[in-house]
Amino acid sequence: MVNEFEQIARLQKKLGKLSTSVIVGIGDDAAVLRPSRGPVVATVDSLVEGVHFDREYVSAEEVGHRALAVNLSDIAAMGAVPRQALVSIALPPSEAPSFLDGFYKGLSRLAKKAGVDVVGGNLSKSPRGIFVDVTLLGEATASPILRSGARPGDAVAVVGRLGEAALGLGMLRRLGRARALSQWPRFTRAQLLAQPQLKAGLALSKGKLATSLIDVSDGLSSELMHLAVSSGVQMEIDPSRVPLAPGFAKAARELGGIPWEFQLHGGEDYALLFTFRPAHWARVKAKLGAAVTVIGRVVKGKPAVWLAAGTQRMALRPRGFDHFQSP
Amino acid sequence: MVNEFEQIARLQKKLGKLSTSVIVGIGDDAAVLRPSRGPVVATVDSLVEGVHFDREYVSAEEVGHRALAVNLSDIAAMGAVPRQALVSIALPPSEAPSFLDGFYKGLSRLAKKAGVDVVGGNLSKSPRGIFVDVTLLGEATASPILRSGARPGDAVAVVGRLGEAALGLGMLRRLGRARALSQWPRFTRAQLLAQPQLKAGLALSKGKLATSLIDVSDGLSSELMHLAVSSGVQMEIDPSRVPLAPGFAKAARELGGIPWEFQLHGGEDYALLFTFRPAHWARVKAKLGAAVTVIGRVVKGKPAVWLAAGTQRMALRPRGFDHFQSP
Repeated sequence: MVNEFEQIARLQKKLGKLSTSVIVGIGDDAAVLRPSRGPVVATVDSLVEGVHFDREYVSAEEVGHRALAVNLSDIAAMGAVPRQALVSIALPPSEAPSFLDGFYKGLSRLAKKAGVDVVGGNLSKSPRGIFVDVTLLGEATASPILRSGARPGDAVAVVGRLGEAALGLGMLRRLGRARALSQWPRFTRAQLLAQPQLKAGLALSKGKLATSLIDVSDGLSSELMHLAVSSGVQMEIDPSRVPLAPGFAKAARELGGIPWEFQLHGGEDYALLFTFRPAHWARVKAKLGAAVTVIGRVVKGKPAVWLAAGTQRMALRPRGFDHFQSP
Repeated sequence: MVNEFEQIARLQKKLGKLSTSVIVGIGDDAAVLRPSRGPVVATVDSLVEGVHFDREYVSAEEVGHRALAVNLSDIAAMGAVPRQALVSIALPPSEAPSFLDGFYKGLSRLAKKAGVDVVGGNLSKSPRGIFVDVTLLGEATASPILRSGARPGDAVAVVGRLGEAALGLGMLRRLGRARALSQWPRFTRAQLLAQPQLKAGLALSKGKLATSLIDVSDGLSSELMHLAVSSGVQMEIDPSRVPLAPGFAKAARELGGIPWEFQLHGGEDYALLFTFRPAHWARVKAKLGAAVTVIGRVVKGKPAVWLAAGTQRMALRPRGFDHFQSP
């Protein structure tokens, strides 16, 4: 068996040189970091085997990637810059060497790309199943973007994919990893290697362009409701404007669903959902490019989300991923 | 079933008012914190059901207490002040309401006492067993104390209890909770409600009194070896000077062990182990009072730990708690 300290030493080696923001990294009782200039943002998120990932069709590298990606997405949703991560893993000792090698590889590749230093680690035995927690610290601009700033009259927009990761998950479950990757590479990769929208989030906060911002981790319908509740407003969405990739409708049908289901309720794409003053549209478009799509508007009223097309509208009930909701 | 957002709202209520260091607490994509003046310290630690605690004899409140205490101890071991915590829990939905109420109660009581704001939370489903990760941020003084500063000629000292939590665990396993608490209250409470040495750690760093510092989480023998390896020195310990509480020897015998076993290898007391220049003894004693005991000295040589009494000495092999060591 490997021991915990050897494992942590191996991790440190894989992670390479730390940035100048780190005074002491892994190896003491705690990491020591230089104080940041702007406000600090901090978030934690978990991946649980059998709940968030299934090792039958997700590799250890992809688990490592996702463990960091979900947190990067939260930092993106504050319009902040990610800085340092602490990684805690509990796993059965029999899985340790092979899983950890792949996990650290996937995590450190994304960490380097995002400019994140891994400064703390913890390794525990789990009697059964793998549990991962990543805490990510970042530095906000002078104006971090909250969920609570949406105002009636604002436009509602998204950057990134919607529903594609959910399609990919469906394909992985239906076809297995090899066939899903060869037949539906775009959607399957959206599930296995989601890309957080760090640049877009930072551009929105630096330009003071968004009035509210959230990442789409659980599904568009859930996140719209979060913005509505936090801001005390209603969201009116035109479903025909929600982006739809080539092949999306065909894939949805093949899974026995309808495209809207996946677009409105599918999670794990890590797109950004935000509101902005319509007068800023030209600047928003210039900053975010072709990836941004306006999908609706903010209206006055008791928190609610509406699907509206022409003169008709219906309430959109949030139906995202909630661990503690009855099925 | 309760849902995740209701749970987090309940947690927020229990935690009460946040300090002025918190701009945004639980409820957005990430917490937003005012930048600190001194360096930031950051650490993460886990509690896994069936590995770190057994619900047969540990209450949910005590799990909550311990989840924070183990991290407070790491911050104490940097000589820093704890500030903000992020708490991630994975548990079977059937256990959620009852466990979480007790857990948050125990955690928030200690958080208030230690001046810690809980600023982030995550709640996941676990297919089996409870997993808790707490990340703790703190603020270091100008001179955080590392493991690497011990020099030949330094004295080696401890603040706090050694081996008592291990005795308590033995009693809980042997006698069950009720009898252990009534027959061996001191040791059983040392196990169930360990008290981190925050004041002592801070006094050492503010006074620039310690050359190296670590907390005793896995057992004295392990932590001595960590200091020896990090500092590139040898530790020579006089076992007759290691503190021994009244009743300790009797309790150890009742468990079929010898006192030294528990004192040298027992973990989870969260005492502090440190080295200092002998010339500073009067100041160390004045700052830490009766709780501090000198147990040995630092000597030159390839990293090793020795038990020395009179003219004899023998190597002390670290035998603390390591999850990934073969038994």
